[in-house]
Amino acid sequence: MITRTLAELAEILDAELVGDPAVTIRGVAGIREALAGDVTFIANSRYESYLHETRASAVICAHTSPSAPLPLLKVGNPYLAFQRIVRLFRPDLHRPEPGVHPTAVVAPDAVIGDGVSIGAHCVIEAGASIGRGTVLMPRCYLGEAASVGEDSYLYPGVVIREECHIGDRCIIHPNAVIGADGFGFAFDAGRYHKIPQVGNVIVGNDVEIGANTAIDRATTDSTRIGDGTKIDNLAQIGHNVNVGRHCIIVAQVGISGSTELEDYVTIGGQAGLAGHIRIGTGAQIGAQSGVSKSVAAGETVFGTTAIPIARFKRLNGYIQRLPQIWEALKKLESRMQRAEQEAGNPQEKERVP
Amino acid sequence: MITRTLAELAEILDAELVGDPAVTIRGVAGIREALAGDVTFIANSRYESYLHETRASAVICAHTSPSAPLPLLKVGNPYLAFQRIVRLFRPDLHRPEPGVHPTAVVAPDAVIGDGVSIGAHCVIEAGASIGRGTVLMPRCYLGEAASVGEDSYLYPGVVIREECHIGDRCIIHPNAVIGADGFGFAFDAGRYHKIPQVGNVIVGNDVEIGANTAIDRATTDSTRIGDGTKIDNLAQIGHNVNVGRHCIIVAQVGISGSTELEDYVTIGGQAGLAGHIRIGTGAQIGAQSGVSKSVAAGETVFGTTAIPIARFKRLNGYIQRLPQIWEALKKLESRMQRAEQEAGNPQEKERVP
Amino acid sequence: MITRTLAELAEILDAELVGDPAVTIRGVAGIREALAGDVTFIANSRYESYLHETRASAVICAHTSPSAPLPLLKVGNPYLAFQRIVRLFRPDLHRPEPGVHPTAVVAPDAVIGDGVSIGAHCVIEAGASIGRGTVLMPRCYLGEAASVGEDSYLYPGVVIREECHIGDRCIIHPNAVIGADGFGFAFDAGRYHKIPQVGNVIVGNDVEIGANTAIDRATTDSTRIGDGTKIDNLAQIGHNVNVGRHCIIVAQVGISGSTELEDYVTIGGQAGLAGHIRIGTGAQIGAQSGVSKSVAAGETVFGTTAIPIARFKRLNGYIQRLPQIWEALKKLESRMQRAEQEAGNPQEKERVP
Repeated sequence: MITRTLAELAEILDAELVGDPAVTIRGVAGIREALAGDVTFIANSRYESYLHETRASAVICAHTSPSAPLPLLKVGNPYLAFQRIVRLFRPDLHRPEPGVHPTAVVAPDAVIGDGVSIGAHCVIEAGASIGRGTVLMPRCYLGEAASVGEDSYLYPGVVIREECHIGDRCIIHPNAVIGADGFGFAFDAGRYHKIPQVGNVIVGNDVEIGANTAIDRATTDSTRIGDGTKIDNLAQIGHNVNVGRHCIIVAQVGISGSTELEDYVTIGGQAGLAGHIRIGTGAQIGAQSGVSKSVAAGETVFGTTAIPIARFKRLNGYIQRLPQIWEALKKLESRMQRAEQEAGNPQEKERVP
Repeated sequence: MITRTLAELAEILDAELVGDPAVTIRGVAGIREALAGDVTFIANSRYESYLHETRASAVICAHTSPSAPLPLLKVGNPYLAFQRIVRLFRPDLHRPEPGVHPTAVVAPDAVIGDGVSIGAHCVIEAGASIGRGTVLMPRCYLGEAASVGEDSYLYPGVVIREECHIGDRCIIHPNAVIGADGFGFAFDAGRYHKIPQVGNVIVGNDVEIGANTAIDRATTDSTRIGDGTKIDNLAQIGHNVNVGRHCIIVAQVGISGSTELEDYVTIGGQAGLAGHIRIGTGAQIGAQSGVSKSVAAGETVFGTTAIPIARFKRLNGYIQRLPQIWEALKKLESRMQRAEQEAGNPQEKERVP
Repeated sequence: MITRTLAELAEILDAELVGDPAVTIRGVAGIREALAGDVTFIANSRYESYLHETRASAVICAHTSPSAPLPLLKVGNPYLAFQRIVRLFRPDLHRPEPGVHPTAVVAPDAVIGDGVSIGAHCVIEAGASIGRGTVLMPRCYLGEAASVGEDSYLYPGVVIREECHIGDRCIIHPNAVIGADGFGFAFDAGRYHKIPQVGNVIVGNDVEIGANTAIDRATTDSTRIGDGTKIDNLAQIGHNVNVGRHCIIVAQVGISGSTELEDYVTIGGQAGLAGHIRIGTGAQIGAQSGVSKSVAAGETVFGTTAIPIARFKRLNGYIQRLPQIWEALKKLESRMQRAEQEAGNPQEKERVP
């Protein structure tokens, strides 16, 4: 069992320790589940009320956190600090041994780096290559002339089709599909004719791709995912999409063909982007939004069809007041009618229905 | 071939039989496809018009159903009664024989209960356990120290990652993924740092999980699915979500991290729930809704962002009347202008644009 | 390497050639990535500006295309023409050899046609059949008594459950699931009881089904997909849905149980359809729409809940003008109050809040 004193943790995290430096920590847990001996964290102020209820022995929190009846490790970025503590107390236990499982089917000309682990029932086709230290868990498929870089980790059921390329230190979750055909058909004479999808997918370094996510190959050329981008589960990335570096794409997002994301774009869950548009650096797209036009760098948009969030909120405020608008309008009509009657004016018969 | 008379079916279902008890039934079918010898059912009044067209030999229906030119089996819950009749005429034919297929890879220390069937190309890692009578169809993956209870059924391609636990009598459909990493990253110095996801998933008894659905493991602690809950295809359940008992989660729903559902919650298809909120017992969330705040027990909400359905319908009614509001407003302006002119008042120049 | 002169390409495409017929073409590429020797295409007028930037040696375009500083191949349907050229320059290189891989598990009574290729770790259950020339890439699953027609292509990880039938010349992308149980439960005594799903799925000829898409089997009878229909990734087709011929279903669409699509229906990405409705021939449903009622043939609907697109745009226009409506209303109230004061009328105290 790994143990550390709060004094040691404070040094590791460069934290301000408020409390007894001799307290011993043996594990990490969420604030509601933590027990004595655990360190926990608060990254979201809505959980501060738990400071007085938690059974944890210490809490990692922001410098601005309120005082609490237990030791605090105050840091600039509690979530980042928690990440380091989790890695400390829970080193990865599940890394399989290097080697090729006897049930895996590996083409004779595949290039397999040092320390690679290829699990049971994997299939590695001709001309594929796998970089040093990469793990393929059982039942992964790597197509002809496809490649995975170094120190990447593919979970069970991942399919990477022919000629697609994955970078270094990538993580691909179960049953994700990289390089399926883009969805392109030409209509003629009463039926759809398939446009062959002869491009590929190129995924950069340090990319994470969620379970059951699909990233389609390009019609020609490449669909690209930039370095450091993180994609959640069940997302759909269409053909010839170009995603920049350090983007966040939350679960069930759909991005249509040929759309471009610059760097540091964040897309909330279930949002959909039309094809052939451009999302500028640092733009943020709200959950469930439907984006039909390009979004400028730094802008935050929301709604279907998406508009700048300040305008969305303003319009939504008026929608909430529609019953009052309606009542005010009817009252004004009555007053007008009375005024016209008293002035002896010809009366309007038509009313709001 | 299994056959039953209507008298026998009426007794099995505790139904009121209107018609000839000697009629023989040989199968079940939908009301539009049924042929002579079939029994069918009506659970939705919109199909009552088919009572006069169906070729079925009898219909299971509600006590309130209109009369019809064919025998009726009247019951309190036609859909439930139909369920029993389907089980009678179509017993499960596809249950594989117990045993471990020679192509399966099973760790020597895995604990396999009596009567378990492990299909071709399954992989069972070290320390995993499978309860009595459970079926793993071909190509399932059960990670280290993971477990499945008794009499559960895993369809081809299911992935259950390490340390996740599935209860008794669960059904998991093809290519579902249980226990992939939650989507958690701390941003620092221009890039995202992965928060290790060291928790697990705990699924209760009698749970059904749809094809290609993803349930993420917790950051620490557990993502939980309560007894009797049914989840459709392509749903996304985030890390540390806590779903209660007997909930219904329809296809393509997304639930963000740390959100809690109490019991008997129903979520319509494609709805999305923000993280860190609580949905009360018996609440209902309409299809495609976007829920950003907690929902009280028993409430029904709809829309993006979701509001109580009565208010949604009221506001939507006003939105539909916006053209009339606009016209009424312009007409009032004209009347006001005329009134002001006649009164010799200074005239307003500005108009609604 | 395949090469053709522009004269030859013009003849193949029945195109009007504007430029030097002797220019040699060696490949195809997108307009932004093309290099000397490539032919590219413009099917969308927003890319016409690239005519002056592309390094391609020729462009396939519409007869109405503006003139350009490089050779043009003018045709009626540029996307269709491009499709033929891609097939010419990039014939399929990845078709595996016929035969059954030694790691595949094929039931002795399965019927396997001439020229069929069954990849590594496939499982073909008892009574299944595969037509002449069909390819199953590695790790496909074909259930008991299921069938695939001739010249179809199943990518890795496809699951086709028992008694489901796939037609000729179909393409099914990785990890798609055909024939999982429909989502049907009868509620009684505080819990949900599963309705056995004893129907199947019948897929016509020339159908394409995307990666991670799920098509559920019928409760009784069949879920049907008509000839020539193309379904994108991550779509959900519920039990007893009946999709007509030559429909387009874009990524992440969800169609609830028993809904019917006639022929030539197009559904935009992430749209959701309620159950038990009918979508008429040629109807178009906008992306992210929520369709709760039947749609007439030829109609285009949009929004949640979906309405005819002209009405949607009209109402949306008024929503955009809500701030002006509000201002106009407040101004009218002031004018009315002044008019009443001047007329010596009793004054209204209530105002729009």
